[in-house]
Amino acid sequence: MTDNPLRDPRDRRLPRIAGPSGMVLFGVTGDLSRKKIMPAIYDLANRGLLPPGFSLTGFARRDWADQDFAQIVHDSVKEHARTEFREEVWQQLAEGFRFVPGAFDDDHAFDQLRRTIEELDELRGTGGNHAFYLAIPPGFFGDVVGQLKEHGLATPGEGSWRRVVIEKPFGHDLASARELQAVLGEVFPSDSIFRIDHYLGKETVQNILAMRFANEMFEPIWNSNYVDHVQITMAEDIGIGGRAGYYDGIGAARDVIQNHLLQLLSLVAMEEPTSFDARALRIEKQKVLSSVTLPRRLDLTTARGQYVAGWQGGEEVVGFLEEEGIKRSSTTETFAAVTLNVETRRWAGVPFYLRTGKRLGRRVTEVAIVFKRAPHLPFADSATEELGQNALVIRIQPDEGVTLRFGSKVPGTAMEIRDVNMDFVYGGAFTESSPEAYERLILDVLLGDPPLFPRHEEVELSWKILDPILDYWAAQDEKGKSKPDPYESGGWGPASADAMLARDGRVWRRP
Amino acid sequence: MTDNPLRDPRDRRLPRIAGPSGMVLFGVTGDLSRKKIMPAIYDLANRGLLPPGFSLTGFARRDWADQDFAQIVHDSVKEHARTEFREEVWQQLAEGFRFVPGAFDDDHAFDQLRRTIEELDELRGTGGNHAFYLAIPPGFFGDVVGQLKEHGLATPGEGSWRRVVIEKPFGHDLASARELQAVLGEVFPSDSIFRIDHYLGKETVQNILAMRFANEMFEPIWNSNYVDHVQITMAEDIGIGGRAGYYDGIGAARDVIQNHLLQLLSLVAMEEPTSFDARALRIEKQKVLSSVTLPRRLDLTTARGQYVAGWQGGEEVVGFLEEEGIKRSSTTETFAAVTLNVETRRWAGVPFYLRTGKRLGRRVTEVAIVFKRAPHLPFADSATEELGQNALVIRIQPDEGVTLRFGSKVPGTAMEIRDVNMDFVYGGAFTESSPEAYERLILDVLLGDPPLFPRHEEVELSWKILDPILDYWAAQDEKGKSKPDPYESGGWGPASADAMLARDGRVWRRP
Repeated sequence: MTDNPLRDPRDRRLPRIAGPSGMVLFGVTGDLSRKKIMPAIYDLANRGLLPPGFSLTGFARRDWADQDFAQIVHDSVKEHARTEFREEVWQQLAEGFRFVPGAFDDDHAFDQLRRTIEELDELRGTGGNHAFYLAIPPGFFGDVVGQLKEHGLATPGEGSWRRVVIEKPFGHDLASARELQAVLGEVFPSDSIFRIDHYLGKETVQNILAMRFANEMFEPIWNSNYVDHVQITMAEDIGIGGRAGYYDGIGAARDVIQNHLLQLLSLVAMEEPTSFDARALRIEKQKVLSSVTLPRRLDLTTARGQYVAGWQGGEEVVGFLEEEGIKRSSTTETFAAVTLNVETRRWAGVPFYLRTGKRLGRRVTEVAIVFKRAPHLPFADSATEELGQNALVIRIQPDEGVTLRFGSKVPGTAMEIRDVNMDFVYGGAFTESSPEAYERLILDVLLGDPPLFPRHEEVELSWKILDPILDYWAAQDEKGKSKPDPYESGGWGPASADAMLARDGRVWRRP
Repeated sequence: MTDNPLRDPRDRRLPRIAGPSGMVLFGVTGDLSRKKIMPAIYDLANRGLLPPGFSLTGFARRDWADQDFAQIVHDSVKEHARTEFREEVWQQLAEGFRFVPGAFDDDHAFDQLRRTIEELDELRGTGGNHAFYLAIPPGFFGDVVGQLKEHGLATPGEGSWRRVVIEKPFGHDLASARELQAVLGEVFPSDSIFRIDHYLGKETVQNILAMRFANEMFEPIWNSNYVDHVQITMAEDIGIGGRAGYYDGIGAARDVIQNHLLQLLSLVAMEEPTSFDARALRIEKQKVLSSVTLPRRLDLTTARGQYVAGWQGGEEVVGFLEEEGIKRSSTTETFAAVTLNVETRRWAGVPFYLRTGKRLGRRVTEVAIVFKRAPHLPFADSATEELGQNALVIRIQPDEGVTLRFGSKVPGTAMEIRDVNMDFVYGGAFTESSPEAYERLILDVLLGDPPLFPRHEEVELSWKILDPILDYWAAQDEKGKSKPDPYESGGWGPASADAMLARDGRVWRRP
């Protein structure tokens, strides 16, 4: 499986190497393929983690030969790969490139795809193991998997596998998610459907579990006895860019909270899994998501907003309603904040506040565990006037790391206590460099090792959490009772989001 | 009391200012006076914390006039003061300088001292409030306090105070400590005797209490459920220098463990005091010290050593037995390590390992709370092979701050967990600069606010802990059974100290 004789296959600390396999990529001309998937495949090859005969087949409505496709991948790798370009690695990888031209309704093309795959099995030893990566809009998933089935591509031979890889959105509500699953499930069994949430491939997201369960000191205080509340934030500084067609009607809650933020919540709130394997993790994530409830008054415990024109990063930017392709009457939210309860023995009474938005103050994703105040302070009142609450902040991106905020004596003759920060910078602590999320995830697809992929059950549970909020907002829109609150570009969301926390006597962190 | 109209006396976060008072300094020519006490007095004056009429009277067997004494203080301040030299502050301070020449048995001189003090009360408004700082060898304490009593200096007038300040050693065992207390106690009431342990004046030592009791996140894990053991280290890189006369027959345990390290232990192990005032703190410190017991087998749970010749910091250094003034047969230890138990509900079963030594690898004082391993690791065994125990390390000096060691995921495609450090640097977190320990302590003497001064009861309790170990070592010496183990200069003590921890399945930190 590997050409590196120095590797001891018994050393499980080393990443496992994928066995004989190939990948078929639909949507080769899209951003995702060019910026993430192709570079990740090269980086994996460069790290010696792909099998020598690995093959990548592009499928698109383009009049290309294999060489044209290879050139596209080459340009993408040159521009976006994380690791150094090495000619010998590239040459070996490129020998496995194939291209099949055709539309999704073109039977002839899918026949050719089958023949291509069979040839690869013979010539390059891919062993009948193929992953179909659908880097295309979800509207086409049905067509493509239907064709795969029809042309005998979805069913593996004895001892080999076929897998399908899809990206969010996994529907836009519970009903559509179920429809999507019905389409996929008709062709592929559950274990062969890999849903990519690239956040779960991030080192710092996986580190949440390492921190919680490999250490003695965090878990004892990781519960409602000590935790006051949890804030999970994903802030973007960009607007919707050219994605009006996708974004309008979807909005911040569906785009980010339903997947990334609820997955983060499940990692932060889960009980210890019996092991770190996919099944054990999935059980715990599903338990958390099943335990999430909404407060009764959604008017007081949610907030939504739309950015208005302003200045950001020294540039004048337009408001959401002025963006090209957005209707002036759009009620799609570009900022969403929700309050969730996790009804378990561990978390009862601890609100989880999730927020996400575009055109916020800066690009940052973080999880903040905010602790209660100490039950008693044996100091003069004046000594602790400027003392806040302890917090453990896991910075997912950028500046990956952990910050601990706690009270410390201010130097001086008096006893005065003030908050200080203790920092751990992920990149500074290790000589190892972090692989891109897509490297990790693509390797896991080829290995068939899915600890980091949300299952359909999780997707359903997440929509069950979000749907009532989306329905409530839609009803408000219809009745004309409320609509997304305007907020300044470069700020931290609408006043209604601050008011939402203020009602609970709390404030959002300014990350 | 103050000439600073900008200060709001109700703001208790500001340091309190000493009321009308003066200090009489015995031992004006010693290192302690020149390097610590005189500069601290100037720094306090410079910070506006001394009363305008503050007076400093030197007493020594020198044929000096007031101006000669002022010159000595001037030189000391210029060389050692922490804060900027300001002529106007100096001038005001220097007007209160007096000098009384005389020996400790010179009745005439003490008469003159009394007249000097009376004059100061009249001229400078010191109000009859005077502290006698005995910066002299303890052998003379009896003579001086006897004279103070005899010449009516020890007894305050109505509404004023007289205090005596002494430095360690407070005896060399329980019996001699009691004798010393008898001598002092005959002249001064308990509340008027201020024992200086300059470690307790250090910011980072006081911060132990701020960290523990102002925060929510540390106290829940600060007990035997989570803590495996505690290591308290004071390492010096220097040898005994010119202190052979003092050090021989005293040794590391008496010189450092009896005072600094047991005081640190009491702050780390104490229960929450009802308040941060002297009485409440003293009660908790005494409770801890009363709860300390020794393991039964002192041969297995203590270690002692003497440094031998070698190289340190690029210089060749002699061994302890070759130091000038040390007998070749000396069994005085320059390194001592002891195992202590704290028999309380909180700490039962958690050993406290204390060590100190001269000519060790580097100068460092730290308290390390070492946590148990997590009760269960839901990862592959190989993932946690390089994972150690969590530790919270309070660095007392130098590099004052706090380090948290915990396991974090190593970047990469596999799940591997390794220890990382999270750092809080005390000096970097605040714009305020740290006062010298002596500033804090001298101000507290003048304020009569003694939270940081060990009481005689604590001194007694500390000797009760140490005496059996000292007796055991002395008996071994006498029987010729064992003597201090040699250790290399620049290393980390004798092999017997490592063996002591190895027996418990533990290792010393290399700070």
